[in-house]
Amino acid sequence: MASEKAIQRLVKALGKLPGVGRRSAERMAMRLAVGPRDLIDELLAALTFVQASVTGCARCGSPTLVDEDPCRLCTSANRDDGLLCVVEDPADIATIERSGGFRGRYHALMGTLSPAKAHGPGNLRVASLVQRVRDEQIGEVVLALNTDVEGDATASFLEDTLCGQNVRISRLAFGLPAGSGIRYSDPVTLERAFRGRG
Amino acid sequence: MASEKAIQRLVKALGKLPGVGRRSAERMAMRLAVGPRDLIDELLAALTFVQASVTGCARCGSPTLVDEDPCRLCTSANRDDGLLCVVEDPADIATIERSGGFRGRYHALMGTLSPAKAHGPGNLRVASLVQRVRDEQIGEVVLALNTDVEGDATASFLEDTLCGQNVRISRLAFGLPAGSGIRYSDPVTLERAFRGRG
Repeated sequence: MASEKAIQRLVKALGKLPGVGRRSAERMAMRLAVGPRDLIDELLAALTFVQASVTGCARCGSPTLVDEDPCRLCTSANRDDGLLCVVEDPADIATIERSGGFRGRYHALMGTLSPAKAHGPGNLRVASLVQRVRDEQIGEVVLALNTDVEGDATASFLEDTLCGQNVRISRLAFGLPAGSGIRYSDPVTLERAFRGRG
Repeated sequence: MASEKAIQRLVKALGKLPGVGRRSAERMAMRLAVGPRDLIDELLAALTFVQASVTGCARCGSPTLVDEDPCRLCTSANRDDGLLCVVEDPADIATIERSGGFRGRYHALMGTLSPAKAHGPGNLRVASLVQRVRDEQIGEVVLALNTDVEGDATASFLEDTLCGQNVRISRLAFGLPAGSGIRYSDPVTLERAFRGRG
């Protein structure tokens, strides 16, 4: 079918988005192609708007208006320049901001080291992190990475990479999450909570 | 953040696609907003191309070129007008075509009855199915629906809806899938395979 080519091109583009496999890309493309017309119109309008107005902040990587780069978090006078919080994903920055637990600057890596996805240091914003630690007056780098295997591997790699620089490197505390019960805790979390007791 | 509004609009549009929940829509939107620029450019180009060139066939619902509606499956002279195969999703048509097991016409419902998703007969292409059965010289309607609860409910509903019409209604055979072992079969499949033995 001649329409197949147009749909396959859309499947390929959708398949490059995070968390979208071939099957789900096909389902989405099919719905966009034969579903109600306003579905594709709405998506096109929203994409065009984001393309024209939003970009990743050149400094921290979080989303910002194209005419406001570096972003407000990077230029705000009310934040501590000596503290740099490293996250995997820009979305984590919004989560941390909501917690109110951090008042320094941010740096998004745009992923983690992952042999499975062939994601090496070159795919992450590591070079610009090293650059910032060298050029800005940063006293402490706080690694706020996920507590899974890839997050741990990335943390170790960053500790090695930054150890020559004159900077303190810390990680978020391990322990019991708030509002949780001992009986629902997994063994690794409990073991870490005992180790970190105080 | 002012960029938040543009991203939320994109999250809303992506969230309307099948199989995309709020979390995954947020991840996709974030990547499109701050990821490499060619990601959003490629998706926009593919969507624009599909919007301009593809539509759902007015007769069967499967994708077709806008200047080829009804589609080739509906207009081909080499197919049996007396057989109409009803599927949930247009993508199922391509799967059935690959099997070579069917040479009639098709009709995509665009979903199934689902109280959970508030999907009633009005959300499906049921009225146009009844119309086709009445107007075209159809001798048999083959229900090729998924063998889950929603597919079974939809099949029963269609049997009731079409029973006044002078048309035979059949369903695809239940039984063991090819290349499978007895020991891997679930009880329902086995019970149906015994019942349908011959």
